[in-house]
Amino acid sequence: MSLRQLPGLIDVHVHLRDPGATHKENFSTGTAAALAGGVVAVLDMPNNTPPTVNEQRLSEKTQIASQKACCDFGFYLGATEDNAGHGAILSHGVAGLKIYMGQTYGPLKMADLAALIAHFRSWPADRPIAVHAEGLAVAGAITLARLYDKQLHICHVSRQVEIELIRKAKESWSATRLTCEVTPHHLFLTQADVARLGTLAHVKPPLGTEEDRAALWGNLDTVDVVASDHAPHTLAEKEGPEPPPGVPGLETTLPLLLTAVAEGRLSWERLVKLTSENPARIFGLKQEGRTYIEVDLDARYVLDSSSLKTKCGWTPFEGMTVRGRLVKVYLRGVMAYADGRVLVRPGFGRALF
Amino acid sequence: MSLRQLPGLIDVHVHLRDPGATHKENFSTGTAAALAGGVVAVLDMPNNTPPTVNEQRLSEKTQIASQKACCDFGFYLGATEDNAGHGAILSHGVAGLKIYMGQTYGPLKMADLAALIAHFRSWPADRPIAVHAEGLAVAGAITLARLYDKQLHICHVSRQVEIELIRKAKESWSATRLTCEVTPHHLFLTQADVARLGTLAHVKPPLGTEEDRAALWGNLDTVDVVASDHAPHTLAEKEGPEPPPGVPGLETTLPLLLTAVAEGRLSWERLVKLTSENPARIFGLKQEGRTYIEVDLDARYVLDSSSLKTKCGWTPFEGMTVRGRLVKVYLRGVMAYADGRVLVRPGFGRALF
Repeated sequence: MSLRQLPGLIDVHVHLRDPGATHKENFSTGTAAALAGGVVAVLDMPNNTPPTVNEQRLSEKTQIASQKACCDFGFYLGATEDNAGHGAILSHGVAGLKIYMGQTYGPLKMADLAALIAHFRSWPADRPIAVHAEGLAVAGAITLARLYDKQLHICHVSRQVEIELIRKAKESWSATRLTCEVTPHHLFLTQADVARLGTLAHVKPPLGTEEDRAALWGNLDTVDVVASDHAPHTLAEKEGPEPPPGVPGLETTLPLLLTAVAEGRLSWERLVKLTSENPARIFGLKQEGRTYIEVDLDARYVLDSSSLKTKCGWTPFEGMTVRGRLVKVYLRGVMAYADGRVLVRPGFGRALF
Repeated sequence: MSLRQLPGLIDVHVHLRDPGATHKENFSTGTAAALAGGVVAVLDMPNNTPPTVNEQRLSEKTQIASQKACCDFGFYLGATEDNAGHGAILSHGVAGLKIYMGQTYGPLKMADLAALIAHFRSWPADRPIAVHAEGLAVAGAITLARLYDKQLHICHVSRQVEIELIRKAKESWSATRLTCEVTPHHLFLTQADVARLGTLAHVKPPLGTEEDRAALWGNLDTVDVVASDHAPHTLAEKEGPEPPPGVPGLETTLPLLLTAVAEGRLSWERLVKLTSENPARIFGLKQEGRTYIEVDLDARYVLDSSSLKTKCGWTPFEGMTVRGRLVKVYLRGVMAYADGRVLVRPGFGRALF
């Protein structure tokens, strides 16, 4: 056994489904899954039912998470066509503003340019605006952020053309005002896996080609964050007639990345930047003292749904052999996870904002 | 009668439908309409059937126009998902590249970001890229032009939010690399006119609100060009079950703008900039010597379809009382139009590129 300490992971993109769809996940199961993945803090997306778009919804969600969460947590405020006026007031209680731009999925989709600009105009300059933007919408978001001098974070970049555009925009504009994330499923799966995984591989943005996947790895110095986009659905839903997009990811991000380190495709320094340092910098989080994880570099095992803590109970990476196993998680000095067991109770997690 | 000389108009956005839909318009009727509107040069759009997307189509169109045109003419090359490689070669024979971006109309629509970037990367820096872009696509086009240092011309801006965004982008980036045009129908009509005009008012982009219309006038110092987007369809088509978008405009732009001058809403200097100086600068045209028009400032008359030279034979401005009438057009020293009659033969017009 060869142990190594790392900073705890901060996953800036999760959907814990609480409230609204707790048959898929809730703050207890989701944050237990987080700890089991070495994740000490999660930033939860606003597309709940009902969506997290005002003070009341934020307050409800904070109350639920405060009672249930095993790790630390923060929320995004969801942008709507008519809540731009409240953004500035609520901004310091949230991780950032989330905007679903253009032709994307869900109840928070915003297509109207005037409504988009209302948010880019009024949101504070020092808090991130995270966007779901694909294709030309990536370019559109960059103009809006640049003209209104906002901190723009582009979620789950999945295409070669997008990461290359972001690289160019960082060079032209700013590598700190413009940041981006990629998901493990876009780093480790492609359209070729759809044959094997069927609707389990249905994600938004969709899995890319091998060229897209290779370009994400090839431009890893342009990627600021690896975030899971943990989006649990039940197997019955995924295998049903209208499979919803999304895969769970909280428990598989770390072993997948450790495997890449073991294979020499990722440096330790880059791993820490992508999963901890950059998320903390972008979202203005202090990395709490005595918060770290221990991993066993020698361990080699097969990813197996039966050991998962996520309520949905499956993973698209089932059967994959990985190298490097999480052994322990310390959160604010407390051993929160060890050898497969979560050791803190729901309610141990704290609100980050 | 109070006569005034002005430079001949250059209309940078027309659809003369030749070849492919000559039952609506052709180069003879369209350029006769141009002269009857004080327009000495037209830039014709590429969305013909078949579209103007390669050397052969450009050559065919040049041949047709050389035989038929009464005024000078140039063409846009249409961008497709696979002709970016030819753009640089063909660029000096055309007015510019036309890209139909995002969710717009017609066979040349381009939604793929990689294909868009291929064009922005390879097109020469000193020739305009004209885009049909609405809403967020305007912002997207600006990022692409800015990152690839291209000269971007945004066609038929129709919304308050768009013109305000362009103003801001000009301030932030460049007022010469980024230019835009508005149409007379967006300056003089609104959604309120749809009740009266029915499907005759069906245009892309759609007519705006009164606030949109007022914002175009209020930001006229951000507008570089007034172009007609002359898009003739037969009355039968417009009144049929699937009315195509577009209105004719070549013969009504000048009287509408002269009326605005007479009403004190537009200065002579601005009129000349919008219809002649700026189009010439943006598209790299020399204003030929002894080319000018004469207008009678005192004339007051009612716009009337029966006197139009456009083959489609109707106007959405029918019945509007205007002030200021075109009297004569001189093109390269030749009196090409006088008192309602075109005096030059088809073939008099020259290719500009």
